[in-house]
Amino acid sequence: MLRMAQATIGNSEFDRDTALTRRAVDGDRHGVHDVHLSAGWVIGRAVNGGYLLAVLGRALRADLPHADPFTITAHYLSASRPGPAVVRTERIRAGRGLSTGQATLLQRGADGTEVERIRVLATYGDLDRLTDDVRTTAEPPHLPPYESCPGSADAPGPVPPIAARLDLRLDPATAGWAVGAPSGRGEMRAWFGLADGRPADPLSLLLAVDALPPTAFELGLAGWVPTVELTAHIRHRPAPGPLRVSLTTRNLAGGFLEEDAEVWDSEDRLVAQSRQLAVAPLLGG
Amino acid sequence: MLRMAQATIGNSEFDRDTALTRRAVDGDRHGVHDVHLSAGWVIGRAVNGGYLLAVLGRALRADLPHADPFTITAHYLSASRPGPAVVRTERIRAGRGLSTGQATLLQRGADGTEVERIRVLATYGDLDRLTDDVRTTAEPPHLPPYESCPGSADAPGPVPPIAARLDLRLDPATAGWAVGAPSGRGEMRAWFGLADGRPADPLSLLLAVDALPPTAFELGLAGWVPTVELTAHIRHRPAPGPLRVSLTTRNLAGGFLEEDAEVWDSEDRLVAQSRQLAVAPLLGG
Repeated sequence: MLRMAQATIGNSEFDRDTALTRRAVDGDRHGVHDVHLSAGWVIGRAVNGGYLLAVLGRALRADLPHADPFTITAHYLSASRPGPAVVRTERIRAGRGLSTGQATLLQRGADGTEVERIRVLATYGDLDRLTDDVRTTAEPPHLPPYESCPGSADAPGPVPPIAARLDLRLDPATAGWAVGAPSGRGEMRAWFGLADGRPADPLSLLLAVDALPPTAFELGLAGWVPTVELTAHIRHRPAPGPLRVSLTTRNLAGGFLEEDAEVWDSEDRLVAQSRQLAVAPLLGG
Repeated sequence: MLRMAQATIGNSEFDRDTALTRRAVDGDRHGVHDVHLSAGWVIGRAVNGGYLLAVLGRALRADLPHADPFTITAHYLSASRPGPAVVRTERIRAGRGLSTGQATLLQRGADGTEVERIRVLATYGDLDRLTDDVRTTAEPPHLPPYESCPGSADAPGPVPPIAARLDLRLDPATAGWAVGAPSGRGEMRAWFGLADGRPADPLSLLLAVDALPPTAFELGLAGWVPTVELTAHIRHRPAPGPLRVSLTTRNLAGGFLEEDAEVWDSEDRLVAQSRQLAVAPLLGG
């Protein structure tokens, strides 16, 4: 992919497209922000859920005394559309090391009434204040080198707008769905970066956990896989360099499936874990 | 353990201790319930988080048009105490197949002001309306027979009040911590039931996911492991018979750890999955 001038944290497509304008409000317990949801993050019928989570995460960062989403849960209520939206936040508790807040994303429906799109509950802290101790049995996913993994330019068909924003390189072992030969395993792996070269930070990790094609594709299920709920834990500030993301689905039952994401940085740190509950496409014939 | 007359769903210690009294309120968007948190579910310094989640889950069940918590997230803000508490609910969205609500548990502090203990966000549905399809690669935990696993009567020291409410039988392979010989692995496994024989249902699964000793004990870390956030997915209505619960911690880093629970029923169904983010006890010497 031909890259533009290297973007930075604070000066990138991702930062511009998640920018909020704070309205004046009384007190510090509630916040109101205006945002324009960019059409650049559309995939399928809706705006990407990870991008929306990053918008809400940024609003909470602005309104809580701590900077980093240690744990953030989003319930997706209705499909967001590109265009204007409002984020309302509530500071629930502000502690010394952790603070908890809530946020909601609203848009005007066709009849002009406000429709709630997403409700979020999160606890924030400061990653930079954590100790460096690590005791882990988790292992980074095995991925072929970045150069050996196909990107959106290699896709056989048209790609959604979000593909131009991301530098996503799929593990060929989990890319069979794209050529009609899904593996049958609930796994998806990829190298992840932003197309303009913006380095990763805790906010972009909220995008990374929901940016890969759904595992359902590799299970041979085609169609929309709407997220009911997604919870992400940001465990460490990511080091510079591309991220590796793995998705795993172990249990598809009753029309629902869980999708677990892990994000690893270039120093082999597990920087984010997430799980979402999603609606499975109808089982194929 | 000598059992009392077999309890039933609706007539058991667990049901009496999660009973709510609804206050009259205007409209159906908000609910207010009084509850008495029982001292029978105390462990360490606080009331058990799974019991509290069940109380909140029951309030949402009363106030939402669907019965079962498909996904429920709790942020634990301050330690609950036995005694009176109030649960306030908000119906966020009521859809055909799913509905989303929020709940908060409040208690009076020493100075009489209301203190928020827990904030919950959840999406409910009807488990009985799901299809029976299952495609899973998840496998139930390997546990020795119930009769071979030690219960609280076998514990070397005093046990907390909650031990009398539960019929918890630890896998000897993960019980080393109780005799000063932790395995060093972040695993905990047990048979789980209620002491009075009440069968499991989706509400008691909310208890089951947070009822075992913390994995930190088997990692050789002693002390309090406060939950920051816990998310549980209830995937299937549990069949009669004892449950098997496994806890796994893969990544302890920066003073925090995740604890993943799986609950399996007697028909080898994965009935619940959960993950919590908790504060690790200080690393031992």
